[in-house]
Amino acid sequence: MEMKLSEATQILERTPVVLIHMLRDLPEEWVRATEGDNTWSCYDVVGHLIHGEVTDWLPRVRMILEYGESRSFEPFDRLAQFREDRTQPIERLLDRFKELRERNLAALSSLRLGAADFPRTGIHPALGTVTLKQLLSSWVVHDLTHISQISRVLAKQYAAEVGPWKAYMGILNISIDRSGDRSGVDPVMP
Amino acid sequence: MEMKLSEATQILERTPVVLIHMLRDLPEEWVRATEGDNTWSCYDVVGHLIHGEVTDWLPRVRMILEYGESRSFEPFDRLAQFREDRTQPIERLLDRFKELRERNLAALSSLRLGAADFPRTGIHPALGTVTLKQLLSSWVVHDLTHISQISRVLAKQYAAEVGPWKAYMGILNISIDRSGDRSGVDPVMP
Repeated sequence: MEMKLSEATQILERTPVVLIHMLRDLPEEWVRATEGDNTWSCYDVVGHLIHGEVTDWLPRVRMILEYGESRSFEPFDRLAQFREDRTQPIERLLDRFKELRERNLAALSSLRLGAADFPRTGIHPALGTVTLKQLLSSWVVHDLTHISQISRVLAKQYAAEVGPWKAYMGILNISIDRSGDRSGVDPVMP
Repeated sequence: MEMKLSEATQILERTPVVLIHMLRDLPEEWVRATEGDNTWSCYDVVGHLIHGEVTDWLPRVRMILEYGESRSFEPFDRLAQFREDRTQPIERLLDRFKELRERNLAALSSLRLGAADFPRTGIHPALGTVTLKQLLSSWVVHDLTHISQISRVLAKQYAAEVGPWKAYMGILNISIDRSGDRSGVDPVMP
């Protein structure tokens, strides 16, 4: 499907509300549960999304518009959330993500981008030349993959409890070696 | 994690609202998009969840309580949603799923089940002896896996649009042979 800015924005603006409904007021044990050693909890994923709003997606849109290929994007620190105050409740992180996303989408809208801007290019520090359209599409896909990850992390907490149904629940049988594994099913490198 | 009825219920009651926020008012093209031939769209998944409410989860709880192992559960028809009126808008399906889930959780609550009931058993037509606890846990995991699936189906619509970022988005590289494949990443056989 061809990326349309109106549709991409429609999905991006839903993500914080979807995550709030999935995670707010869940018992702490659920929010902090992982898929095993060196994998991320729902708490970690929301922290990662916050960092993406602050340092990644919209700043890179601006880099393309201002510098094109003359300056490379800043590398994204995918472990930044582990250096934040981790005593904050998930509800505060969810609210912060929602605020940042709203602000970023308002800023994006004020840039009045059109399809004519989509082929504009910038330099990703690892991927090389990328277009504005690819960046905006990746912002959307990144959200969706993390919603998918959060559902999977929660599902796995009952992996033993489902007994013989486990054979029917393919998601429980996906093993994640480590959260940073590019070959795994998670996107962690925006 | 050990299944607690209060926590299981808390997750089950969120699912319709989460799906409403993900899917309501999305363009029809997105709602009906699949991962390829013989895979399910978001529309199909919501139809499947509706059939689970009507014919599967709560009816099986009642079967265990009433008949124990003396009668086998009815097999679940995982393709039933394809025989429904498929011209209904997704919003109507989402509302129907929400109503059914609310009604089923109210009925579940009125059964006043406790941990002492969890080891009670019934007969699954394919899996054999299963416990009430396994059934209730599977209801939760089934919801979560379908939320994960819906996110993945949506993400894949931009698989080409993300360009080189595809290498970082593991979810885009999961191939689903067909929606009924038990070895795949989707649960389709409750």
